[in-house]
Amino acid sequence: MGNCLVAQSGGPTAVINASLAGVVRANQLNPVFDRVFGGIHGIEGVLDDKLFDLTELTTREIDILKQTPSSALGTCRYKLKRGNDTDYKRLVEVMDAHDIDVMFYIGGNDSMDTVDALSEWAAANGCAKRFVGIPKTVDNDLVPVDHCPGFPSAAKLACQVTHATRLDYDAYTRPEVFVLETMGRDAGWLAASCCASGDVDLLVLPEVDFDRDAFLAQVQKKMDETGECYIVVSEGAHYANGTYLSAGDTANDGFAHAVLGGAALTLKQMIVDAGIAPRGVVQDLSRAARSSNFAQSLVDVTEAYELGMSAHMHAADGAFTGQVVGVAPRTPEELATGTYNARFFAAPASKFANYVRNFPAEWILSDYQGITDEALAYFRPLIEGEPKLVYENGMPATIKAFNKR
Amino acid sequence: MGNCLVAQSGGPTAVINASLAGVVRANQLNPVFDRVFGGIHGIEGVLDDKLFDLTELTTREIDILKQTPSSALGTCRYKLKRGNDTDYKRLVEVMDAHDIDVMFYIGGNDSMDTVDALSEWAAANGCAKRFVGIPKTVDNDLVPVDHCPGFPSAAKLACQVTHATRLDYDAYTRPEVFVLETMGRDAGWLAASCCASGDVDLLVLPEVDFDRDAFLAQVQKKMDETGECYIVVSEGAHYANGTYLSAGDTANDGFAHAVLGGAALTLKQMIVDAGIAPRGVVQDLSRAARSSNFAQSLVDVTEAYELGMSAHMHAADGAFTGQVVGVAPRTPEELATGTYNARFFAAPASKFANYVRNFPAEWILSDYQGITDEALAYFRPLIEGEPKLVYENGMPATIKAFNKR
Repeated sequence: MGNCLVAQSGGPTAVINASLAGVVRANQLNPVFDRVFGGIHGIEGVLDDKLFDLTELTTREIDILKQTPSSALGTCRYKLKRGNDTDYKRLVEVMDAHDIDVMFYIGGNDSMDTVDALSEWAAANGCAKRFVGIPKTVDNDLVPVDHCPGFPSAAKLACQVTHATRLDYDAYTRPEVFVLETMGRDAGWLAASCCASGDVDLLVLPEVDFDRDAFLAQVQKKMDETGECYIVVSEGAHYANGTYLSAGDTANDGFAHAVLGGAALTLKQMIVDAGIAPRGVVQDLSRAARSSNFAQSLVDVTEAYELGMSAHMHAADGAFTGQVVGVAPRTPEELATGTYNARFFAAPASKFANYVRNFPAEWILSDYQGITDEALAYFRPLIEGEPKLVYENGMPATIKAFNKR
Repeated sequence: MGNCLVAQSGGPTAVINASLAGVVRANQLNPVFDRVFGGIHGIEGVLDDKLFDLTELTTREIDILKQTPSSALGTCRYKLKRGNDTDYKRLVEVMDAHDIDVMFYIGGNDSMDTVDALSEWAAANGCAKRFVGIPKTVDNDLVPVDHCPGFPSAAKLACQVTHATRLDYDAYTRPEVFVLETMGRDAGWLAASCCASGDVDLLVLPEVDFDRDAFLAQVQKKMDETGECYIVVSEGAHYANGTYLSAGDTANDGFAHAVLGGAALTLKQMIVDAGIAPRGVVQDLSRAARSSNFAQSLVDVTEAYELGMSAHMHAADGAFTGQVVGVAPRTPEELATGTYNARFFAAPASKFANYVRNFPAEWILSDYQGITDEALAYFRPLIEGEPKLVYENGMPATIKAFNKR
């Protein structure tokens, strides 16, 4: 066989480089491909013939790559659209020029759709190039997997920040509310995962249309009962008419409160304006949630690395294309008993693409009260374990990004 | 001797409980006091006779207490003012009722002033009660110490988030700026410490009056040269007229831009409005900076614990009162050679109280370019080392706060 190419797409995660490391290391264990190239800045750089040879990374570099957050190859927002023959032909031209037979694409929904479209196009055009997907997304919104690499580490960081800031909040006697905001534009997985810390009083998800009065009634109730109210909100939380909370509290009155910033700031201001608490604290996890190397989940790093290896091993079969590897959903028995066992599988990319898996309605408690025990049982094993990190100068060591060399 | 009392005051830190653990453990090693009481919610709870007996904490509880962030006794914003005889007399009344001879007060500037005032008052009124200070503050603004317990861990977290989000930012090709905000109302130590990560392009401190045009010129320059600009700003950054950046960009024009939120949001909007970059990302460390147990500095935990022990050991001397323990400033030679050796000392509380140590002007580079090599040499040893944490359910274990029992 000739060479292979790996590229990363979409938003970075804490373990997207572990999947990259897995592909590179698998090829060192069994050199199916002569060279392993990395595409710089995703498909954008590949189309521009910007590749980096990863074949001979040392074991030390691979170890550090596994604990380096963000996309070490760089990423892009450029999408290879279905039917875009110009891009497809250019891609094959670059692959031909470097004798590349297989492209591994590490990404989310859109990238898995690209894997599907490229393999379809290749079949229809008598092109022997093959395309294999490796999933990642902190949003955890892919079907048909148990979860996506990247999400468990984001959830672990979110739980740790939730617990630490809850302890900070609990230390005071003065009346105030605390509002933590997480990423999650369409799906509330990350916000919901904060409940695994046991510290969340009220949870606001994009899966439930926001009802200002009902929400404020619950805040008032918590303040009356305990003098405290710790709230977690997903950035994508919205009113029934689709207006995001982050656009400000426009549902209530005719005043033009110019609330810039996020959903948490809006909720805080709403609570203060309603006279329920005289003040509030806002903590927005923002980008730190998805790219921390100081809160990697061992389950997550291991799975991301092994999925990279698994993809490489499958690709040794010359007929393997248009497929994505993943972690199979747990059985109801496993969820009920808290048993965790990561079973890998491969399935056509079409099963991954173009679906968004929301946080399940049956796992959401009414009145913003959080999530069910079954949902907690789903989250808990994912945040278990911590990798033994290599430190340099007081910080987890990282590899210099390939797109910066 | 009779009993002693420990209370925590002001904003929590990641290691304020380690100092508490140090006092408790020291008394187990040498039971100078019959009982060690904790004051619930600082002086507020003490005046209200709310104490918790810490004498017999198990070694396991002490170990977990050391890695528990925030104030496990609870804190308050109540200040014992000089000349407030009513409060002083009530305090002595409570101490008498529990046969308490010595009060250890863990806190910042104001608390050290309280230690000074109480010991003066006791001397003037023939009262044998003694008062000993143990410093803490993430602001690092106390004289005459090298640094304050709590600050190194906050700096370590700030550096880690800086590095992780810089890698995330670097992964993209699109033009945008990144602005990280840290705590620090009057002193810029925490913001400046982010430079130890090596990832900061521009630094905005409260120690330098903000000049909009000069700042924007530097942003433009960085964007022209590298296509990137990673900025760190202290929440207390302000214009020459004293107006905080967080109050909005009011210096420039007559438009009433209602910018709510922090300094980072203001800077981002300022840059976008000036047409230098079409978009920007904001990350506010907020409370997470001071109370994380997932980024404790080993130097910090050890020193906080040992300062607690040192305070207890000094207090075995019946004449010891009105004093504060601390880590002595490094010598110029130590700073120049990067040698670190924590030397403890005790000094009158009056030397700690009522001074604010700003980030040194001679350590600040002009044009928002960051800090000098000497400043970097100051920060680096403080963030070294990581304690071996005990984990439970995927998170660092914490003790149930005494004010919640």
